[in-house]
Amino acid sequence: MKNINVGILGIGNVARGTYQTLELNRSKIEQATGASIQITKILNRRPELDRGVNIPKEIYVTDVNEILDDSSIDIVVELIGGIEPATEYMARALKAGKHVVTANKAAIAANGKMLQALAQENNVLLRFEGSVGGGIPIINAITTSLLSNEFDEILGILNGTTNYILTKMSDEGKDYAEVLADAQKKGLAEADPTADVEGIDAANKLSILMSLIFGVDIPPQEIPTQGISKLSSYDINYATEFGYRVKLLASAKKQDGSVSCNVQPTLVPFSHPIAAVSNEFNAIYITGNVADDLMFYGRGAGPLPTGSAVMGDIIGIARLIEKESAYDMQPLLRYDAPLRCAGEGSNQYYIRVTVPDRPGVLGSISSTFGKYSVGIKSMVQRAEGDGENSHVPLIFIVYQTERSVLDQALRELLDNAFVDSVDSVMRVQR
Amino acid sequence: MKNINVGILGIGNVARGTYQTLELNRSKIEQATGASIQITKILNRRPELDRGVNIPKEIYVTDVNEILDDSSIDIVVELIGGIEPATEYMARALKAGKHVVTANKAAIAANGKMLQALAQENNVLLRFEGSVGGGIPIINAITTSLLSNEFDEILGILNGTTNYILTKMSDEGKDYAEVLADAQKKGLAEADPTADVEGIDAANKLSILMSLIFGVDIPPQEIPTQGISKLSSYDINYATEFGYRVKLLASAKKQDGSVSCNVQPTLVPFSHPIAAVSNEFNAIYITGNVADDLMFYGRGAGPLPTGSAVMGDIIGIARLIEKESAYDMQPLLRYDAPLRCAGEGSNQYYIRVTVPDRPGVLGSISSTFGKYSVGIKSMVQRAEGDGENSHVPLIFIVYQTERSVLDQALRELLDNAFVDSVDSVMRVQR
Repeated sequence: MKNINVGILGIGNVARGTYQTLELNRSKIEQATGASIQITKILNRRPELDRGVNIPKEIYVTDVNEILDDSSIDIVVELIGGIEPATEYMARALKAGKHVVTANKAAIAANGKMLQALAQENNVLLRFEGSVGGGIPIINAITTSLLSNEFDEILGILNGTTNYILTKMSDEGKDYAEVLADAQKKGLAEADPTADVEGIDAANKLSILMSLIFGVDIPPQEIPTQGISKLSSYDINYATEFGYRVKLLASAKKQDGSVSCNVQPTLVPFSHPIAAVSNEFNAIYITGNVADDLMFYGRGAGPLPTGSAVMGDIIGIARLIEKESAYDMQPLLRYDAPLRCAGEGSNQYYIRVTVPDRPGVLGSISSTFGKYSVGIKSMVQRAEGDGENSHVPLIFIVYQTERSVLDQALRELLDNAFVDSVDSVMRVQR
Repeated sequence: MKNINVGILGIGNVARGTYQTLELNRSKIEQATGASIQITKILNRRPELDRGVNIPKEIYVTDVNEILDDSSIDIVVELIGGIEPATEYMARALKAGKHVVTANKAAIAANGKMLQALAQENNVLLRFEGSVGGGIPIINAITTSLLSNEFDEILGILNGTTNYILTKMSDEGKDYAEVLADAQKKGLAEADPTADVEGIDAANKLSILMSLIFGVDIPPQEIPTQGISKLSSYDINYATEFGYRVKLLASAKKQDGSVSCNVQPTLVPFSHPIAAVSNEFNAIYITGNVADDLMFYGRGAGPLPTGSAVMGDIIGIARLIEKESAYDMQPLLRYDAPLRCAGEGSNQYYIRVTVPDRPGVLGSISSTFGKYSVGIKSMVQRAEGDGENSHVPLIFIVYQTERSVLDQALRELLDNAFVDSVDSVMRVQR
């Protein structure tokens, strides 16, 4: 049985999960591969720390060159995270004729195009299943079985931390800050949760998915992104009343030669399969022109689920090495559609405003909305004011409109003092 | 650009869907394949019938040998359905050195082992993504990306017709017969619905999944199978009250060296992701020892969704032909685990009985259950009797027990006349 040698860069959660995956399932993996996969070196700059795993200390190296320059290593697995030096290391590995597997969404979203070109030049493979959706094999599905489809819509719950927080806010009626603290205690949110809660992580993943599925080159920083840190539990409760769950939805739609895309808290109707995706689970919902609606659901993070994806990529490459087979050099990331992100597109919206509690206010709002052709689909006024100078919340759901038009209408309402403040505007998924 | 020639056996829905898929998405498919896929012949024994599709009549052949003996054909796509003559034709194609793609669950469940061996002997590929879950790329996921996992549980909603009927019975409170007639009108159920409604179709698919996932050789006729034709809307309504949906669930569990498996109407808690799978949609829910819970959701039938899967298989083979690459001869169907199906295993159960409305009945039932260590988890008696000789329904959910033990307890209750009749027993999924 041939040995396939693997060097891992990094000794964090996912690296340990990958090591453990191989240890746990070695006999099945060897049977499937027809070769023996050996993790021969792991870059661990601080080998003196106890990592709580049973990795023989002899395979630790402290210098990245010991892996990148080692001609016996067939596959380099980059699990350091962050854009640099991860990108530089991957580029060096590819140039050295090594296959590269990574779970690094930030580096692939930023530099996937360059890294893929390098892989092709050097006739080696770059695989990154773990970078989107953790243990969910979405990238393989899109780039093999589903190639018979054109897709026009992507909806994703791509971040487990925020989905956990939103589920708890909704189920237990707690506030954002309280649930975040709880998630941090449980290890479901990082000490600095910014990348998760502000939607940056999800935007990286959406950028990768749009390239894989639509063939567009839209970097994450061009995706309109809004997180959940300012989300009020009021809005979650009102949304529930209207028949919706609030999800941090990464959404992209190809239509009439343009792509609308965004990451933001979105109202999803109870009846939509993605509304039932709870806690730290992720899901990707895509609609093909022949396969129609598909949803892939699973754990979007965690050492073992991500380790499952990384090891799946390693197995795929190892099978080709074992058979001495020609590599399939078809690019996964495609950039053939010259489209930019055209904002949110036309949507229904949920709007919460505070208004003075006096006669005529609703009429004025209606006629301002009417002037901009914003149709009111439903409305509630729950709280009652307690006198002439009191102020009450009004909640609307409005029919399909452009966000820019809606924003203009809302500005006019503010200017004319028909409303005191616009407290919340959220997209409604149909 | 190399031509890859395809001959299709059959001109039914899926054959036309496959043809249409290629027509619709030819440019994407050619780009992905690096070759031009040509459907050069279609077996159509009655070319005089109008099939309502735009297929040039010149490619119709009426004699199967015109395809099986045609040395220019690279891939034979079997879409006749049924076990024979489909199996015979596939075997002949494989022996003639042609790759075979099929969506035929009955033939693969019955003869997959033999056909796969033939493919290996002749160094060609046998692919059958469309045989389970229609457009859902579950077989590819299991046999590539997820090879890094051992799985211990499979739950599937594998039949769209029955899921549609159950959804309508539940949502609209209608009876089985009424909804079936409606489904037949809508083309969602066949004129003879037996294979669907009696669970035979789902058992074929579960047999294939168990071989792919567990590596066991359990033919469909060894799977305890119960359909939905005798299901009462009473039970669906009571289940809803208890917090469950009734689904025709195909379920298999590997535990302590045995496999429990069955296809039957099952109570699924609202909170389980598979409970949210409605109408004609299918889903496969599997739990890996590293990826953890995964669910794949989509359309389990229909010309285009199944055509998507068939064309996905064709593309996969065509890419290898185009590259003149070594074929990956790893078997997909595995038979390495020498396990038989050991019935339903230990489960919670839903039980509806009719009892005489008199004092002491509930006590007698409880003590009989107690004698067999069947614990009562919840109970309702809704209807009230109207006198001494009246009879009322009682509904129980009981804790984890072996089905055989439960059946013994129920027999004793009948014998001792504590209950008039046992009207319904259904497995409860946890």
